[in-house]
Amino acid sequence: MKNYSQGDLNSMEQRERARFVNSLSGFKSANLIGTKDLKGNENLSIVSSVFHLGANPALVGFIVRPHNTSRHTLENILETGVYTINAVCVDILHQAHQTSARYDKHQSEFKYTKLMAEYGERVDAPYVKESPLKMAVELREHQTLKLNNTELVIGEIVEVRVPARAVMPDGYIDIDGLGIVNVTGLDSYHIGKRLNRLSYAKPKQAMHPLTIEGEPSSWEAIAFIKGEQIG
Amino acid sequence: MKNYSQGDLNSMEQRERARFVNSLSGFKSANLIGTKDLKGNENLSIVSSVFHLGANPALVGFIVRPHNTSRHTLENILETGVYTINAVCVDILHQAHQTSARYDKHQSEFKYTKLMAEYGERVDAPYVKESPLKMAVELREHQTLKLNNTELVIGEIVEVRVPARAVMPDGYIDIDGLGIVNVTGLDSYHIGKRLNRLSYAKPKQAMHPLTIEGEPSSWEAIAFIKGEQIG
Repeated sequence: MKNYSQGDLNSMEQRERARFVNSLSGFKSANLIGTKDLKGNENLSIVSSVFHLGANPALVGFIVRPHNTSRHTLENILETGVYTINAVCVDILHQAHQTSARYDKHQSEFKYTKLMAEYGERVDAPYVKESPLKMAVELREHQTLKLNNTELVIGEIVEVRVPARAVMPDGYIDIDGLGIVNVTGLDSYHIGKRLNRLSYAKPKQAMHPLTIEGEPSSWEAIAFIKGEQIG
Repeated sequence: MKNYSQGDLNSMEQRERARFVNSLSGFKSANLIGTKDLKGNENLSIVSSVFHLGANPALVGFIVRPHNTSRHTLENILETGVYTINAVCVDILHQAHQTSARYDKHQSEFKYTKLMAEYGERVDAPYVKESPLKMAVELREHQTLKLNNTELVIGEIVEVRVPARAVMPDGYIDIDGLGIVNVTGLDSYHIGKRLNRLSYAKPKQAMHPLTIEGEPSSWEAIAFIKGEQIG
């Protein structure tokens, strides 16, 4: 193991430090945020900072960095109070990554990436038609975090679109099966391979795998990775 | 595509809604937070809410749900001002999941899961020895989000431990190569399979894959998934 002190971090070249520190939090979701300004100009921006905040009410947060290309997204959200969050899948990965280019505010990333906009029943913000998991969100809180002037945006999920086949009987959504990607660092994209769902943990009780309908158990996968037989 | 309205979400049974809404944000990092109270009792808690907040200074946030088993973690952080964040890898997945069981505050999850504590040079909070990517953090901000009484905890990364071989020359850390897992929903764990790193996006310019040293390009992987040959 190599030990990096705070001094080591501070002495890294700026882009190197950005790549290093952005890697530390591990796997991140990859989502496209869809918005529209009051003049009707659509905007689309990839973010890796969407996080779950609560199920009841259904709240979701994300972070906007200052001077980032997603600042148009924030301006539109503050104007209209609504947005969409669209999971990035393998089929649209390159188009999704391209939305991080610095287009002008009047230039729609939908147009330049050839992603299709579609509208739901609840909010006037564009979904990404090609995304297999998307939600419409109403802004509930916005604050600037004074530590580094990043913007925290929190909204309530008011509509969800997902193929019915991906929703398991117990409510869990099969993210892997939808081909959804994740991101590490600034620019590395990955698909997931499920190891297992694990049962609710209790003290002094052995856990067991939860079976996803139609999927083989993946204890074998873990054993394979570890190069040994388990259980 | 199936459309779920806000009414549909509200009418779900509580556990079903928790599984459904927790799935919506897609892939999440899986980390163990290590803390110690002022009496020296160690605590370890798995969280899926760690998120990157900035590289300079190196800031990282996470969310604690009210009444969650990680409340002991929060109490210790507020007492001591320090904690560690340790990535969960395949080898310690079951032990990591087991830390979510409701142990009493004086019971150390290190003891019950047989994970090993080790200490760094900067802060008096326990690392997980078995974790391949870990950081020591000093508390910088704590607030209760009024919308749903979740706690937002923000800290500055003051030490990092990671194998030197996993750090690429440009600063990116090879998360896949370290066997680090991610989580979807409440209980599903996955490993990652890298598709590619993609170059910095600019308007009107084609992107290209960035090669990770020693790794084959994964355009073939995308083609495989899509069932076709790509360019």
